[in-house]
Amino acid sequence: MAKAEKTLDDLFLDTLKDVYHAEKQILRGLTKMAKSATTDDLRNAFETHREETDHQVQRLEQVFEMVGKRAQGKPCEAMQGLIEEGKEIMDEFKGSVALDAGLISSAQAIEHYEIARYGTLINWANKLGMKDAAKLLQETLEEEKKTDALLSKLAGEAVNQKAAA
Amino acid sequence: MAKAEKTLDDLFLDTLKDVYHAEKQILRGLTKMAKSATTDDLRNAFETHREETDHQVQRLEQVFEMVGKRAQGKPCEAMQGLIEEGKEIMDEFKGSVALDAGLISSAQAIEHYEIARYGTLINWANKLGMKDAAKLLQETLEEEKKTDALLSKLAGEAVNQKAAA
Repeated sequence: MAKAEKTLDDLFLDTLKDVYHAEKQILRGLTKMAKSATTDDLRNAFETHREETDHQVQRLEQVFEMVGKRAQGKPCEAMQGLIEEGKEIMDEFKGSVALDAGLISSAQAIEHYEIARYGTLINWANKLGMKDAAKLLQETLEEEKKTDALLSKLAGEAVNQKAAA
Repeated sequence: MAKAEKTLDDLFLDTLKDVYHAEKQILRGLTKMAKSATTDDLRNAFETHREETDHQVQRLEQVFEMVGKRAQGKPCEAMQGLIEEGKEIMDEFKGSVALDAGLISSAQAIEHYEIARYGTLINWANKLGMKDAAKLLQETLEEEKKTDALLSKLAGEAVNQKAAA
């Protein structure tokens, strides 16, 4: 297809593939982060969000079905970079009092990437008249925002109790 | 320094370097995005935020001074990935009705990375008793949030007027 003929439908599909790939990377990332966390609260938060992410992947597969396309990821360099930064923190701060604070920081950067992407997809789905897709994506967006808020709460506690002790 | 001896001060400095590198990449990215934008409103938004980003870099340099360290970037893989994704959209959607929608989407993903990072830095600065640094970083966070809100507004217009026409 010539570039000039590309439309919002193409952009929607491209971004859907990007987010699909990102969520699958996050699934693996959350497993590692849960293992690294030093408090039960943080480990539970990561494990709970891992389960939510499983459902989010399924919702994306439903949206692929709605647009009549095969669920397929497109390498998401941004998420690869975010995960890489998370790994560096896990490595560099292993055993340190600041490890949990670092893990939370990485997780919140990941959440914000998703908040931006789902916000965009919802806007486009509505413009394209895909109300059902918009509704599914909105459910995921609410989960991402809730996770970010929980992590902000845990960030305050992590620093109070451990890293700044 | 042994990993186990690392503290929140180290994590703060590491993240400060990450954001410093990210902002410098954004400066270049915004220049390219402004050139690609097809409406005056969007071009103006990118140019205004480029000027803000100049000040944000200076604020980070002030924070480096406050902690007695030389202003120095640390390659930020996440931002490299975000910028890379933005470039792909500029290339793949050049001349298309969906270009502006794509540019806005990339810019919002970038803004959300910064919103996450500055939120984290402010929390840590407060815990470390660096009230002046927290205040400076808060000024930047407000600008990032304002830019994100403006881009959301332009996203609605971009889609209405052009891409879904």
